Amino acid sequence: MPVNLVPPARESLLPVGGVEIGTARAAIRKQGRRDVLVMRLAEGSTVAGVFTTNRFRAAPVRVCQEHLGASGGAIRALLVNTGCANAGTGEQGLANARRSCELLGQALGCEAGRVLPFSTGVILEHLPMDRLAAGISAAVADVGRGDWLDAAEAIMTTDTIPKGESAQLKTGGRTVTVTGISKGAGMIRPNMATMLGYMATDAAIAQPLLERWVREIADLSFNRVTVDGDTSTNDSLVVAATGASGASVSSESDPGAAELKAALLAVAQKLAQALVRDGEGATKFITIEVRQAASDAEAAAVGYAIAHSPLVKTAFFASDPNLGRILAAIGYSGVADLDVDRIELYLDDVHVATRGGRHPDYREEDGQRVMKQAEIRIRVDLARGSHDTTVWTCDLSHDYVSINADYRS
Amino acid sequence: MPVNLVPPARESLLPVGGVEIGTARAAIRKQGRRDVLVMRLAEGSTVAGVFTTNRFRAAPVRVCQEHLGASGGAIRALLVNTGCANAGTGEQGLANARRSCELLGQALGCEAGRVLPFSTGVILEHLPMDRLAAGISAAVADVGRGDWLDAAEAIMTTDTIPKGESAQLKTGGRTVTVTGISKGAGMIRPNMATMLGYMATDAAIAQPLLERWVREIADLSFNRVTVDGDTSTNDSLVVAATGASGASVSSESDPGAAELKAALLAVAQKLAQALVRDGEGATKFITIEVRQAASDAEAAAVGYAIAHSPLVKTAFFASDPNLGRILAAIGYSGVADLDVDRIELYLDDVHVATRGGRHPDYREEDGQRVMKQAEIRIRVDLARGSHDTTVWTCDLSHDYVSINADYRS
Repeated sequence: MPVNLVPPARESLLPVGGVEIGTARAAIRKQGRRDVLVMRLAEGSTVAGVFTTNRFRAAPVRVCQEHLGASGGAIRALLVNTGCANAGTGEQGLANARRSCELLGQALGCEAGRVLPFSTGVILEHLPMDRLAAGISAAVADVGRGDWLDAAEAIMTTDTIPKGESAQLKTGGRTVTVTGISKGAGMIRPNMATMLGYMATDAAIAQPLLERWVREIADLSFNRVTVDGDTSTNDSLVVAATGASGASVSSESDPGAAELKAALLAVAQKLAQALVRDGEGATKFITIEVRQAASDAEAAAVGYAIAHSPLVKTAFFASDPNLGRILAAIGYSGVADLDVDRIELYLDDVHVATRGGRHPDYREEDGQRVMKQAEIRIRVDLARGSHDTTVWTCDLSHDYVSINADYRS
Repeated sequence: MPVNLVPPARESLLPVGGVEIGTARAAIRKQGRRDVLVMRLAEGSTVAGVFTTNRFRAAPVRVCQEHLGASGGAIRALLVNTGCANAGTGEQGLANARRSCELLGQALGCEAGRVLPFSTGVILEHLPMDRLAAGISAAVADVGRGDWLDAAEAIMTTDTIPKGESAQLKTGGRTVTVTGISKGAGMIRPNMATMLGYMATDAAIAQPLLERWVREIADLSFNRVTVDGDTSTNDSLVVAATGASGASVSSESDPGAAELKAALLAVAQKLAQALVRDGEGATKFITIEVRQAASDAEAAAVGYAIAHSPLVKTAFFASDPNLGRILAAIGYSGVADLDVDRIELYLDDVHVATRGGRHPDYREEDGQRVMKQAEIRIRVDLARGSHDTTVWTCDLSHDYVSINADYRS
């Protein structure tokens, strides 16, 4: 059961001018479910992405990076399949990824190098190219008929509900729309990107600016969530800017640029948090604020140490205020000269630990009260500097074990 | 249910001359169980230890380090309590740890500075000093009557069975005994030491040599096991050398030194592996061999990435040969210039992946056969250098979640 997350209403996911969507049920792994997505982008769209840092990055990730580089971001279509990650598949995997771009390029009348391919699902297995080819044909026939909710459904794996978010803003008298979708729900510890996230806006955004923004936005959204600490082989976040609205930005100082970037970040954070709310087996949504760190990296290290601790996560699952486990995680987070005697720890409004030890006024009942909530905020003050960050995670439940013990069956 | 591990027979844990043991039931946290251990060491014993690198190291760990440093290893007694870790307890925690040394020193007629205190259990709570004092008195009254199995029982927390190991060797016509005990069973990712491990030999070992050996032995035993990746606040491994056998070594080149070190390492590895075999919820014992790494640190990083992946661990629990998860973990292990196209992966005798992709002869049934075993060996060849290491871990089961969700109740 996702934590305070419901499927988006179809009408809440606003169409983005210049983006046409088609999906198909191609039985890549399972019968009867949407598992192929084609997204056609208007001529002139700019596209930028960030991808997994896993050295075993999947064949489609390598091809995406090649095509983005060679085209300078002038991408005309995205192709996504679920059910098979096409990772750990060597030369044949690369050939299959390239072949899928050719098939889609032929169907849409664009070069294969203008297609970005994405795959998600089981690792170490080859794409079923016959079924994928049929799925591409069917999805192309559907292009223009599908909507963002169809797209969100087509990229799901163990997600229990589709994830999408929209925002709109006025700039220079024009209405600009931002819509995005994402999927989780395990092997989630994005490192430069997330499992799969797609966002589009009908503003025009100059390629260099878009590339910088995608990195910055990923760092404050998808790169700040974790379910299980496992960085996937297929993480990808892509943002497309079609320009169909007539609004256009090419530098940070352009009118409306700050508002547009904020809208993109807001959508990205909602999508990233949705991965956690629907994390495998999640019953709690946990926000970890680390304050007063000496650097951003240090703040993130402390946040992730807490977020990845199986002991912290099981305590949250049990609503057990066994909060010493949080201190232990801070202690092994790798901050070599950490002075634990200056650390303050809060659970929502409850002051749990002061100067590294139990707060004299802390009462178990107060901790218990907060731990029972579905949404919990941990705050750690390190008293070392001025860098703050926030990491979002979920608890570790029996269902996480069940889901991952049964994933392929 | 521990994996191929049974409680040691009482007579299999050989007494070590110069070591006298006493235990007590002091109700530190729970009624009726042994929870205080006193180990008296003969005058002239040398003692060395390695301790957690967690910055939130517990008060007793700090006191141990002080006393070892100030006494030059001339320790006369060890004091251990379970039920309360005395961690995250600030100044009062330090005062309590020091006070416990005074109490034991008075009872045994030695200086407080010759006592090493150890605590394990719940973090963020203070020691119940009244009950501990009574426990110390009772354990001192028992000194000389207890044996190593009593000691192993007295240090258990969530362990399901006591852990101990002995070895004997002949050197220079003298029989030398090595006996050790350890406890787990969660928050196990020792980093320079383990949760609690105590070893003793009746050989005499010169202090500088003993200190070096303890570090080297810890690195190849306790520092190579993990249950959940959580480095405890209280990890401690201590080795005492009493000299009661008449055998004596003071340098690596002394007659019998190599054999003695090998015996100490063998006992330490058995004790460390026992932590994993009895790891919280463990149903499988997994040996991860990483070969041909460019450095020891790199080999360990790859081994631990596999060992800590919740996805790998749940796949082992399910006996599901979802082996792409192992490749993904290798890929995010932090080896920046890793060439995945040179990686070979084996599961026992089954060649799963070659040159980074699925081996053409690999059949799912073969993987399945190995995954169903209670003991599984993963071998990764990195083709980067000549450094090898081995990491031992267990799977992640429903029982791990249950145990840690219910730990304090």
